[in-house]
Amino acid sequence: MAGSSFGRLFRISTWGESHGKAVGVVVDGCPAGLPLTEADIQACLDMRKPGQSSVTTQRKESDTVEILSGTFEGLTTGTPISMIVRNTSARSGDYSEIAHCYRPGHADYTFDMKYGFRDYRGGGRSSARETIGRVAGGAVALKILEACGISVTAYTSAIGPVCVDKAAFDAAEIFRNPVYMPDKAAAEAAMALILDCREKQDSVGGVIECLISHVPAGLGEPVFDKLSADLAKAICSIGAVKGFEIGDGTLAAKAFGSQNNDPFAIDEDGSVIKKTNHSGGLLGGISDGSDIILRAHVKPTPSIFREQQTVSDDGRPVTLSIKGRHDPVVVPRAVIVVKCMAALVIADALMANMTARMDYLTDFYRK
Amino acid sequence: MAGSSFGRLFRISTWGESHGKAVGVVVDGCPAGLPLTEADIQACLDMRKPGQSSVTTQRKESDTVEILSGTFEGLTTGTPISMIVRNTSARSGDYSEIAHCYRPGHADYTFDMKYGFRDYRGGGRSSARETIGRVAGGAVALKILEACGISVTAYTSAIGPVCVDKAAFDAAEIFRNPVYMPDKAAAEAAMALILDCREKQDSVGGVIECLISHVPAGLGEPVFDKLSADLAKAICSIGAVKGFEIGDGTLAAKAFGSQNNDPFAIDEDGSVIKKTNHSGGLLGGISDGSDIILRAHVKPTPSIFREQQTVSDDGRPVTLSIKGRHDPVVVPRAVIVVKCMAALVIADALMANMTARMDYLTDFYRK
Amino acid sequence: MAGSSFGRLFRISTWGESHGKAVGVVVDGCPAGLPLTEADIQACLDMRKPGQSSVTTQRKESDTVEILSGTFEGLTTGTPISMIVRNTSARSGDYSEIAHCYRPGHADYTFDMKYGFRDYRGGGRSSARETIGRVAGGAVALKILEACGISVTAYTSAIGPVCVDKAAFDAAEIFRNPVYMPDKAAAEAAMALILDCREKQDSVGGVIECLISHVPAGLGEPVFDKLSADLAKAICSIGAVKGFEIGDGTLAAKAFGSQNNDPFAIDEDGSVIKKTNHSGGLLGGISDGSDIILRAHVKPTPSIFREQQTVSDDGRPVTLSIKGRHDPVVVPRAVIVVKCMAALVIADALMANMTARMDYLTDFYRK
Amino acid sequence: MAGSSFGRLFRISTWGESHGKAVGVVVDGCPAGLPLTEADIQACLDMRKPGQSSVTTQRKESDTVEILSGTFEGLTTGTPISMIVRNTSARSGDYSEIAHCYRPGHADYTFDMKYGFRDYRGGGRSSARETIGRVAGGAVALKILEACGISVTAYTSAIGPVCVDKAAFDAAEIFRNPVYMPDKAAAEAAMALILDCREKQDSVGGVIECLISHVPAGLGEPVFDKLSADLAKAICSIGAVKGFEIGDGTLAAKAFGSQNNDPFAIDEDGSVIKKTNHSGGLLGGISDGSDIILRAHVKPTPSIFREQQTVSDDGRPVTLSIKGRHDPVVVPRAVIVVKCMAALVIADALMANMTARMDYLTDFYRK
Repeated sequence: MAGSSFGRLFRISTWGESHGKAVGVVVDGCPAGLPLTEADIQACLDMRKPGQSSVTTQRKESDTVEILSGTFEGLTTGTPISMIVRNTSARSGDYSEIAHCYRPGHADYTFDMKYGFRDYRGGGRSSARETIGRVAGGAVALKILEACGISVTAYTSAIGPVCVDKAAFDAAEIFRNPVYMPDKAAAEAAMALILDCREKQDSVGGVIECLISHVPAGLGEPVFDKLSADLAKAICSIGAVKGFEIGDGTLAAKAFGSQNNDPFAIDEDGSVIKKTNHSGGLLGGISDGSDIILRAHVKPTPSIFREQQTVSDDGRPVTLSIKGRHDPVVVPRAVIVVKCMAALVIADALMANMTARMDYLTDFYRK
Repeated sequence: MAGSSFGRLFRISTWGESHGKAVGVVVDGCPAGLPLTEADIQACLDMRKPGQSSVTTQRKESDTVEILSGTFEGLTTGTPISMIVRNTSARSGDYSEIAHCYRPGHADYTFDMKYGFRDYRGGGRSSARETIGRVAGGAVALKILEACGISVTAYTSAIGPVCVDKAAFDAAEIFRNPVYMPDKAAAEAAMALILDCREKQDSVGGVIECLISHVPAGLGEPVFDKLSADLAKAICSIGAVKGFEIGDGTLAAKAFGSQNNDPFAIDEDGSVIKKTNHSGGLLGGISDGSDIILRAHVKPTPSIFREQQTVSDDGRPVTLSIKGRHDPVVVPRAVIVVKCMAALVIADALMANMTARMDYLTDFYRK
Repeated sequence: MAGSSFGRLFRISTWGESHGKAVGVVVDGCPAGLPLTEADIQACLDMRKPGQSSVTTQRKESDTVEILSGTFEGLTTGTPISMIVRNTSARSGDYSEIAHCYRPGHADYTFDMKYGFRDYRGGGRSSARETIGRVAGGAVALKILEACGISVTAYTSAIGPVCVDKAAFDAAEIFRNPVYMPDKAAAEAAMALILDCREKQDSVGGVIECLISHVPAGLGEPVFDKLSADLAKAICSIGAVKGFEIGDGTLAAKAFGSQNNDPFAIDEDGSVIKKTNHSGGLLGGISDGSDIILRAHVKPTPSIFREQQTVSDDGRPVTLSIKGRHDPVVVPRAVIVVKCMAALVIADALMANMTARMDYLTDFYRK
Repeated sequence: MAGSSFGRLFRISTWGESHGKAVGVVVDGCPAGLPLTEADIQACLDMRKPGQSSVTTQRKESDTVEILSGTFEGLTTGTPISMIVRNTSARSGDYSEIAHCYRPGHADYTFDMKYGFRDYRGGGRSSARETIGRVAGGAVALKILEACGISVTAYTSAIGPVCVDKAAFDAAEIFRNPVYMPDKAAAEAAMALILDCREKQDSVGGVIECLISHVPAGLGEPVFDKLSADLAKAICSIGAVKGFEIGDGTLAAKAFGSQNNDPFAIDEDGSVIKKTNHSGGLLGGISDGSDIILRAHVKPTPSIFREQQTVSDDGRPVTLSIKGRHDPVVVPRAVIVVKCMAALVIADALMANMTARMDYLTDFYRK
């Protein structure tokens, strides 16, 4: 069964392996008339690009996107938007030694079990390069959200034990440090930790938080396609994500109802608001108009340089020594991926919600 | 857009409101020839039935399932299995006072925003009775898993601050206490806490853990339809779930790679095994043959008996006093729901995986 | 794989066997606020009910529909509408003699090949009773179309060699004769033919035409989900349909471009119109605002009373003599099925089209 | 809503406009281990290539396919296969004069109605170049069918009034004439007719027949996803197709049951066979093991060189004179498209059928 497509009305299909000719995405269901250029996509892709600082991988790739279809004179046409990024830095030689052994924490073994063999070059389809398609597609979704007045902010909230201090939150700081943390002091501590990891030939995980503001109330469906469920799937489909929270998340499980319930109130302008937002912007899986807040918990990069014990694909014990270009932390580069996956879910929900009521149809067709 | 269906090859579509005539489910895509009786379904439904002990709701319903189609002489026929549970205990009068006010923590407000109005009787479609369809459908999935040698165990691992002691884990204990905890001492502490909540007119959340054993390696798809992503969606689509973890989950985000990687080794029988299971049975989103372990973090029941401040649907402040029959904790009754949702995902993945390789097709069709 | 659901945004899932407890449908994705009662559904079901005249089957069933969910105070709520029709006239004894033999023209053999066995009572899932779910779901779609100003007319245009005379077309006549023909003389000839078939223990096929008026231009998608393609699938999914045409259909294949092209012109009110409608209301698979015209070619009922040579399921030659209650023609009862299937496609396309342009989204969300 | 994807388990997503940078397809769900090279794809693409003879369009394009992902060392890997064909012969100047007028029989008007504007160069997404993606994807499906012992034959059975003589059917002849007819005399008459059309600045339609042999019994689903319904959608999604038949098709509607029923018999080897095949290889929408036969009725090319009356997009009458490179008949080039669309449906059904029975699952997982 397929598995490389995401979304219902606004739908992306990604393709490509780490060391194949290219990676890419087809966006289907994008409304016509959205201004879209390659620069819009490139700005997002650049955020996930490796080789940007001392704390990320040394692999240098230009990762330049080309739009092949679906736009005309700077606007989307309503037909599929095909985007491609050529793989320029592939050095197959780097990976030959791991062709027949199973790297711990990687998908080598499970690919062999599923498919009988695998494209072992650089992780093939399970490489982080797979996220290029997500980000290119998500960049289009972000343009739709922007046109509808919705903003998405994502940042690193923890690297290993180093957490952002909520009191020190400064959105402007996010893009000033290479770990995308909204807290300068935390960012510096995190960078020190990462360099320490590199020195110790180890790696570390972290947490990414995403805040979606000005979402209209009413998005999401009541049962299986709750907005929270679709966001959970979107986020947990990103490689290395091992946990997902919405609103108070795991803390809600320890809370009492009298604390966790968000009281409704009437705002100065007469609208209904919530006094608190423990629920993270959703009630019954449907957006309530307050900020949607979610967190992705990311495991440490499995590629570490210290020697590891493992086995070969013909059943012999092997001492593995990974070489090449690997981040000691994948979290900062995954920030834009989380942002884009969240945007894809919201764009889809915006479109689905337009048919929720009969008067929406009659207003549209009987005008 | 729909939203009441779940699964791709093995697919359920649920329907029904708390105080309508009935609730039910249609299971489509169930293989022919599976032995299935109403007793199989009823056994699962009975686990989510209210009114079973002093710590769960006082609402008494028989919740008797009737199979209307899809079986013949005790076997599934391959055609849709329609199952229905009549609502027998609906007392609409209980709910009339909340028809025009928004209960904190409930979906009243978001349903009004989405649909323009709502069936306010007992929460309508957002009631916990919605899970009857999930459980009835999941009971069929559990039969498929059993036939394939896969077992699913779910239990309460925490109620508020009361956590199961892993050292004291005793699977046989799960069904001996009304909170479904695998640790007698924790269960007693949890029951004391729940009764205390009831006395204080408050409620409490908790954590449900699910263990899936003997899953063949290779299930799940590499990108968006990772088994972890589908499980995340399945679990987070359950009302009140605010967090999801797989394997070490949120702890993985704090770990170093050298700790978190599970080394491969050769078992006595020559097969490949993992020495540890931090990953929770999945690598790259695909099952690796070790136990799949997941956790659902459940918020406290929003229906609490103490007075709450809220607003009416015409914008006036209201002091709300909820009456009726409500659990101070929803966690124990949700254990079977988590188990069933997990089973639905695995059954679907089992079927999808049968076409992963070309030799599977040629073996099947050229024999 | 499933296969009992139809539609994307407006989606029905049907279930039930001829001689099971009941048949039914779940409608998911119906907009909230549509007035809907059981009488709306019953009116459509009554058109496919057997036992209505001397030319249709003698089986008498009340086929009374019950709405179990999805409406509140006479309006749809946006949640799934579950509808059920109990099977009241099932007499299993009628069918026991065909339990182990393959009726020519029926699905007995193919069900055995697919599933390994079958519910042989009355055709099971492949019985014409399966269409009850389609009609009940289509009745809801028809209400949506009506609210949007779209009308659907379906009728028998031929029974065997007896064709309606286009010059004599009289819409009012359709419901005045039991074969639903818009031409009194043709209807009388058709009824004579059917009675002759009954006498000769034979059966006959026919053609159903469907006209959809006031469809807004722009419905349908450009490539695989052309409105014509979705209509073709809808119609060809009805049992016994062996051919499908849109507009001039098979005649277009014999025509020259200079005849077949419909010239555009400016109407008196300044709008763009087509001077002819060879295309049947679609260009490039997308509605062009003129009437959509389609035809379903229906094979003769396979159940005939004269003796037939066939084989048993253990490989012996058998002389088959079908008993029971069977129409010598299925066409009139299928008229409402064609109408409902067409309505399902249009309702779905109406909803999908509401997100085709970016200004539709910004108008909706930024107002 | 999307609309550029086709298939469930074996799924293609096409993209690209006539005069954009490229056209292409992503194939998702292809089993791993299928031998596949660009030459396999190219052989099919070459059949739809224009400029091959005096009776097809003069537009010369190399239409060379490049596989960008999803294969490794000559085998499919189970991950998405992305294929691209660059547009090399685009001369935008040819089309500027029709930028603001609606060509009769084309989708110009409906695209404007749907999307508000269109890429007018060469028909954009509604150009016949859109079929390149279908053919490239279908070529992969054909390889799967071949591996499972299934063969697909497609050919032109009529051009305008010129029909193939069934008695003269010669499969070897199909590839010996540029109209792909299995009857030399008919092919010559058809070519004369086409040249006459060209001289008269007119165009003509035709019929394509497709024969699928050695299909195992049991493919297809009983209700909406009947194999006949999926084939109908596949074929009617091809631009210019106005009618679809399976087996006896429209003739079945004129037949009596005693003629149309195919009697079952026991073959010499003890297997169940049908003595005739009026049904065209399907019973109840499920394959019965005999040849599947279908026909596509194709309208004349709407681009004709004689002057036509139409209107501009600002509502003025226009006399249109189409220039450029256009076939007087599209039928021969569409033969491979019909073949590929049929192959896509069968490949998908082959995969879906592997989970139809419970013992298929237990045999697979408990071995």
